[in-house]
Amino acid sequence: MGVSVDQGLSLGRPASLEDPLKIAILVSGRGSNMQAIAERSLRGELPVRVVRVIADRFTAQAVARAEALGIDTRVLDYRALGPSEYHNLLAEEIERSGAEWIVLAGYMRILPEPFVRRFEWRIVNIHPSLLPAFPGLHPHRQAIEHGVKLSGCTVHLVDTGVDTGPIILQRAVPVLDDDTPESLAERILAVEHQAYPEALTLLASGRLRLVGRRVVSVGDTSARLS
Amino acid sequence: MGVSVDQGLSLGRPASLEDPLKIAILVSGRGSNMQAIAERSLRGELPVRVVRVIADRFTAQAVARAEALGIDTRVLDYRALGPSEYHNLLAEEIERSGAEWIVLAGYMRILPEPFVRRFEWRIVNIHPSLLPAFPGLHPHRQAIEHGVKLSGCTVHLVDTGVDTGPIILQRAVPVLDDDTPESLAERILAVEHQAYPEALTLLASGRLRLVGRRVVSVGDTSARLS
Repeated sequence: MGVSVDQGLSLGRPASLEDPLKIAILVSGRGSNMQAIAERSLRGELPVRVVRVIADRFTAQAVARAEALGIDTRVLDYRALGPSEYHNLLAEEIERSGAEWIVLAGYMRILPEPFVRRFEWRIVNIHPSLLPAFPGLHPHRQAIEHGVKLSGCTVHLVDTGVDTGPIILQRAVPVLDDDTPESLAERILAVEHQAYPEALTLLASGRLRLVGRRVVSVGDTSARLS
Repeated sequence: MGVSVDQGLSLGRPASLEDPLKIAILVSGRGSNMQAIAERSLRGELPVRVVRVIADRFTAQAVARAEALGIDTRVLDYRALGPSEYHNLLAEEIERSGAEWIVLAGYMRILPEPFVRRFEWRIVNIHPSLLPAFPGLHPHRQAIEHGVKLSGCTVHLVDTGVDTGPIILQRAVPVLDDDTPESLAERILAVEHQAYPEALTLLASGRLRLVGRRVVSVGDTSARLS
């Protein structure tokens, strides 16, 4: 069967280490996923270049981490600017950076609909559950309280809903009887650090297509996923 | 942390090959999960004995399979009997069989609330998705149309909802780009045939507890899961 090249909307483009996919990473917190992506990029393991890291608060640990990696880093203080000015400046900063894709990495704000439409199907997020299970806040706690035996992470395109967009990649981990939200978060985070670079590698293969709400691949991308 | 023995409701009991957990299996269709369980039981690989197979229709392939395995098999014709008489006879037949647990294996009817309450927390089902995602009918089609990259199966206790009960065990499989509901069903069914016997082994360990809506284990059951 497979998907023919003329089907659906093309996602990403064929990139390479010489002509990497340019991404801006939005952060609010520790920035461990940002770091996992940036380090692989800097080591030449990922056909992706981080052209900007943008934090929504000065306190984000991610800011110091990104600067330490030599990445062009900005803080846009959401609380000082307010939603409207913040999102205008954010969009301008991203366009000025030349980023082709926006990568949310522990970014804790919902992007408003006009922003999502402006960068339509060029925003990607990682969520620490096997979506569609446990979207939104506190997914680890939700998973434990529901009593699932498997959880994991989902890399997905951002649409105007909360964690509802088309899914690029998912990875599972076990939920253990004595897990706390913190211990489960730690186990899932370890696979997030693998899954997010893998998903970006898929976007940089130029082979992904959006067909309906499914993300499918034309041809074999496995050779690019070590 | 772990769970102490006095916490929650005990599920199952410590059984053995000499003193197996007695189960009745309800079927509507092919009975491949019934067969996977019964064959392991007959080979002495499972501390479980199938004391009855009950089908809701004469046409179920499971009936011929169960009889071929020498299992005491009954057909209760739902359409001829009607819901009320059917469920009365079903409950009587199960009690007469001496079954301690009721195992739904491709059983296509919703058990009414009084029936579920009569056998409270002694009914187990397998559903071909990673619940809480894609409960109810056509889970394979739901998974493909949603575009998830992982699906699988869930063994769970039956409560009065549809596929909402406490989860005993889950196993994941990949969803491939060119999957049809049929090809995905086949891949999941292969893991169902492993997962259902494993879940019954857990019930026959006497170590499972229901705490809130979580099924947890007291002590280590891994030695019993080859």
